[in-house]
Amino acid sequence: MASDAEIRAMRRAIGLAARGLATVLPNPVVGCVLLDPDGGVVAEGWHEQAGGPHAEVAALRVAGDRARGTTAVVTLEPCNHIGRTGPCSEALIEAGVRRVVIAVPDPSDAAAGGAERLRRAGVDVEVGVLGVEAEQGLEPGEGNEVWLTAVRRQRPFVTWKFAATLDGRVAAQDGTSQWITSVQARGDVHRLRAQVDTMLVGVGTVLADDPLLTVRDAEGIPLTRQPLRVVADTHERTPADARIRGGDAPTWIATAAEVGVTAAEHPALDLAALMRQLFARERRHVLLEGGPRLAGAMVEAGLVDRVVAYLAPALLGAGPNALIDAGITTIADVWRLELLDVRQVGDDVRVLARPRVG
Amino acid sequence: MASDAEIRAMRRAIGLAARGLATVLPNPVVGCVLLDPDGGVVAEGWHEQAGGPHAEVAALRVAGDRARGTTAVVTLEPCNHIGRTGPCSEALIEAGVRRVVIAVPDPSDAAAGGAERLRRAGVDVEVGVLGVEAEQGLEPGEGNEVWLTAVRRQRPFVTWKFAATLDGRVAAQDGTSQWITSVQARGDVHRLRAQVDTMLVGVGTVLADDPLLTVRDAEGIPLTRQPLRVVADTHERTPADARIRGGDAPTWIATAAEVGVTAAEHPALDLAALMRQLFARERRHVLLEGGPRLAGAMVEAGLVDRVVAYLAPALLGAGPNALIDAGITTIADVWRLELLDVRQVGDDVRVLARPRVG
Repeated sequence: MASDAEIRAMRRAIGLAARGLATVLPNPVVGCVLLDPDGGVVAEGWHEQAGGPHAEVAALRVAGDRARGTTAVVTLEPCNHIGRTGPCSEALIEAGVRRVVIAVPDPSDAAAGGAERLRRAGVDVEVGVLGVEAEQGLEPGEGNEVWLTAVRRQRPFVTWKFAATLDGRVAAQDGTSQWITSVQARGDVHRLRAQVDTMLVGVGTVLADDPLLTVRDAEGIPLTRQPLRVVADTHERTPADARIRGGDAPTWIATAAEVGVTAAEHPALDLAALMRQLFARERRHVLLEGGPRLAGAMVEAGLVDRVVAYLAPALLGAGPNALIDAGITTIADVWRLELLDVRQVGDDVRVLARPRVG
Repeated sequence: MASDAEIRAMRRAIGLAARGLATVLPNPVVGCVLLDPDGGVVAEGWHEQAGGPHAEVAALRVAGDRARGTTAVVTLEPCNHIGRTGPCSEALIEAGVRRVVIAVPDPSDAAAGGAERLRRAGVDVEVGVLGVEAEQGLEPGEGNEVWLTAVRRQRPFVTWKFAATLDGRVAAQDGTSQWITSVQARGDVHRLRAQVDTMLVGVGTVLADDPLLTVRDAEGIPLTRQPLRVVADTHERTPADARIRGGDAPTWIATAAEVGVTAAEHPALDLAALMRQLFARERRHVLLEGGPRLAGAMVEAGLVDRVVAYLAPALLGAGPNALIDAGITTIADVWRLELLDVRQVGDDVRVLARPRVG
């Protein structure tokens, strides 16, 4: 059983892990705290970015010789594969760590087995300490949920973001929509964009709004790269001079020819296949930005893992809705979400929610 | 200038006034605190219900002879008319009160003039102390705003309440809507109903949902009477056996014959005339409960003073919107509100907002 000191250290490690949220993709966020036998902190580390040292290695480097005999408290099962860095399980064994406390087992095929490797080397291992907290975060959305969900489902985690009036409109009757929400809410969206590796829009949005879809003004978030911009564009309607093709960010126009279509009566882009292809390209977090029909198709396909709604205290009474055609016709089939967080952002209300489990 | 003790007493009086919110209509909420020359509280009172003693009289009764030489701190200008109770200005003069501190002047023709009457009798009078707080309340919606707005505009204050999904739907595609929001949110609506004197629905809502529209389960709110139920029913389509005609509550089927119609191309019920008639019937607070088209017409006519939105963390993707046809076609004309309060009620989000001033 984990000691009080170990539980405190795990909470600390979860907080450390979150520091990597904006920079670590396609890798997981991981934090590690090394404790001496009296429960004192010897060293800390977290995974800062893909290609850089893993959390355990970062902590071991700080500790040096003092790592011998310590307990490593780590938010994710130490990896057992040789990737861009050596396996963490071996590093912990070599450093003489005597016990390893783990929050969440690694669900990936390539990296799993670290706990077993440690046990075989005589290290005491405990798994499942503050597992929910490590996955969900100490604050909503700040855990390792994105990466864990992506690896378990073999497709990217999908966050659907929309900005609407209180009556659910994303634009006025004549199509104008700039701006429904406040400058603070729009800044919040840029911070959200900075934390994903992929942004997805439908070709309808490209034709209507001609968005650039890059990260700007991501105040307080280190911007290490621009996310991949993906257009769901079954019939290749994206104009040659669309802004989304320009700028200093990569773009993928995902067409029926590349992705395939569903076998439905009215064939549409196979969104599940699109997600699998994105996962194969090492994409782990898709921000779905619009429009309402693409969102409806993603919801209907069960491909939305988190909803971020910016609701402006404003009313339109006409114009397109935030969500159209999600395959729901009666109230008994309403798609219920669990409220994770509600707060005011600038003049607007931000609601964070996720599908109810089970 | 008001002393610190007087300002503290005014804050107290505003809180006392709010105790009458659910019971006082068609009268204002008023609180009164009597202070001795050292700023000590001698007595308190508030207006509990129409026909009962006014706040000043209630406080004077408690004080008895100790009222002489005190300062009366009162949230609304003392009345100067002989209604069901004698004029408060005379009562204050007779009791020997030497100074009266007032938050808000009385805008009504019948009762105004109290401050002038007091001054003529040699009482020191100060008006405008914590006027905004007295009107808006120490908590949003808990001031004398309803009554003051009604008297100033010579029509009832209108609170529009709706319950919708995050994408703004008030029902599913097939018309089913029970229940979008949680039992806690529905209980909150009953408390809201208990605080108004009138409820308004369109005949479409009557035909679709056949609501009873009475106050039930108003936990914590003393229910002294059922609000008047009004159906906006231009062409007399309310069925003879509609539930809204039954129950132990009064009903008014407001038709074109009684209320008149607008002079527009497609004549509709004259909602401004309806409001004037309700005011003439001593109605001061209308809760607009639906449907979306009536709400649109009320918004377009500038007849909505407060919006209470219950937003369920749920998505439908189809079905009617909370607001339809409010006369807005482009984003520049969006109806902007000021956010007063956002909180979680049960599983849902409650947003309290009002039109931006100016």
